[in-house]
Amino acid sequence: MSTYKAINLVKRPEGNIGPDLFEVVEKTVPEPAEGQFLVKQTYMSLDPAMMGWMSADTDSYIPRVELGDVMRSSGIGEVVASRHPDFSVGDQVIGMFGWQEMALTDGTGVNKVDKDLPPEMALSVFALPGLTATQGLYGYGHPKSGETLVVSGAAGSVGSIVGQLAKADGLRVIGVVGSDEKADWIVNDLGFDGAVNYKTDDLGAKLDELAPDGIDVYFENTGGPIQDYVFERMNAHGRIVVCGMIADYTSSNPRPGPNWMRIIKKRLSIQGFTMPDHRHKTKELQAKLTPYVQKGQIKYRTHVLEGLESAMSGLSLFLTGGNKGKLMVKL
Amino acid sequence: MSTYKAINLVKRPEGNIGPDLFEVVEKTVPEPAEGQFLVKQTYMSLDPAMMGWMSADTDSYIPRVELGDVMRSSGIGEVVASRHPDFSVGDQVIGMFGWQEMALTDGTGVNKVDKDLPPEMALSVFALPGLTATQGLYGYGHPKSGETLVVSGAAGSVGSIVGQLAKADGLRVIGVVGSDEKADWIVNDLGFDGAVNYKTDDLGAKLDELAPDGIDVYFENTGGPIQDYVFERMNAHGRIVVCGMIADYTSSNPRPGPNWMRIIKKRLSIQGFTMPDHRHKTKELQAKLTPYVQKGQIKYRTHVLEGLESAMSGLSLFLTGGNKGKLMVKL
Repeated sequence: MSTYKAINLVKRPEGNIGPDLFEVVEKTVPEPAEGQFLVKQTYMSLDPAMMGWMSADTDSYIPRVELGDVMRSSGIGEVVASRHPDFSVGDQVIGMFGWQEMALTDGTGVNKVDKDLPPEMALSVFALPGLTATQGLYGYGHPKSGETLVVSGAAGSVGSIVGQLAKADGLRVIGVVGSDEKADWIVNDLGFDGAVNYKTDDLGAKLDELAPDGIDVYFENTGGPIQDYVFERMNAHGRIVVCGMIADYTSSNPRPGPNWMRIIKKRLSIQGFTMPDHRHKTKELQAKLTPYVQKGQIKYRTHVLEGLESAMSGLSLFLTGGNKGKLMVKL
Repeated sequence: MSTYKAINLVKRPEGNIGPDLFEVVEKTVPEPAEGQFLVKQTYMSLDPAMMGWMSADTDSYIPRVELGDVMRSSGIGEVVASRHPDFSVGDQVIGMFGWQEMALTDGTGVNKVDKDLPPEMALSVFALPGLTATQGLYGYGHPKSGETLVVSGAAGSVGSIVGQLAKADGLRVIGVVGSDEKADWIVNDLGFDGAVNYKTDDLGAKLDELAPDGIDVYFENTGGPIQDYVFERMNAHGRIVVCGMIADYTSSNPRPGPNWMRIIKKRLSIQGFTMPDHRHKTKELQAKLTPYVQKGQIKYRTHVLEGLESAMSGLSLFLTGGNKGKLMVKL
């Protein structure tokens, strides 16, 4: 009887996000019952939202992971045994398989993807990051050719796609990043019009230089001091899409937001969103994204960690900005 | 040759809003040219937005009043001479007539109202306050029966109508006010479900008591500390309509807003608006409002100052909250 490894959450984060929050366990590979199938994961996705799922805060938009449960995550894998009518051995599937080498599922929330699609691309573009970018940008950002868009976390999995979509649509695109290497990547490889390094640049002066006509769309992935500088430069009828606040995930004393006077003066709209509300739109969002990918307008890079256990220390890269590209674990 | 009085803006406010900012001048009553008509104002409306029009800030949504120009305001009056095909002597009209006893106009932005409508009601309900309340509540607030709405500046000209509309639509309605007299008025005369006195109540505890199921719609007229307390209690998919920030109009150091994390967790939408963008919708908004008025669901009260010159000191009532009801000047 063969076994596989899984990782349970056993402690809630208090500032730190490291291996001490988790426990590796060995489990027996199960047999699918009627209507079930077994997935052997090839890659697990690590995403900033996972920080929220671990937290003690029950006020979040998605149920937290209970202590003792397998850590929640999305991933991609191959069906290795099936008693489900819609899934066959050999299918490549994406779903919320968790931090484990094998996953038994009844197919809820599981989507098949083309077998020929490289799994890294599937996770980087057609899974959560691409869907999030597409929903946020088109559902709330309403980008128009000739406008200026600023995206924070611009070298991240969502931000890099947001910027490339907007660029393909004819906007002027400025990305906010935390290193010169990332600035170089988004400008020289992805074709952004400019980059602001929030750690080293004079934020106001740099934004004035890069966005001389002000800012029409702000796609917020990070929070932090850049927020005030962008907010002050929002144009009339500007749209702000609030997707992530990574700078505040582990803060016990989150920094205040900007005064609301400008919301009136500039008739701004600010919209927060999370993807669980839009799960039913997966196919529609993938269809929106596909032509950009086919035209070669969406580049991505992956930051691949090796082996299940690497996930436990990998998450902390989101807090330090240490990941370069879509973070994932190869199993 | 007869004359009339007008008041010019001669100085920009720096904290204070008083008579020293203005100058009373005497003018000769003009003759309408072809396509013009002359209005004798009966009431001038005083509105919080006027504070913005006077300010030095050129970044506002509507051009500022230039020094030496007649102070801008809306008002109601009677046509006393006309060479305009659409307006006849005796018509009752609403328009941006300014702080003056007589106004010459070509009819741009001037609307006729029923001669039998009391001018106080026309200014309180069917002019800026009612249109603002209607646009904000229905255009952005999307109220649903059974939800909870909080409105700040609840005894003000806009807030009192917002609350009554929402109440008529079956919402639980909590008003934020600055005096017990106003609290009494909105609860006992207007039928609000509760009132918070932001000057004397324990804001968090009072909101918890009055809005035990959280808050779905926040109509913001004031800014100030209440904002944080309401924001923290917004429910998932809550809508915030930002209409006024009177607490910050004359502040040189506006207080910060709330951290944006909750915007994501609760998928909030925040929308700022100002009525100049919606001027073309006047008839549509009045039509939306009319059935509520006909059913007696919209009560109003007026705070009437006497004589043109009273406007100069009257504006400061907005800063102290000293006005009780729609502020206007009887000429």
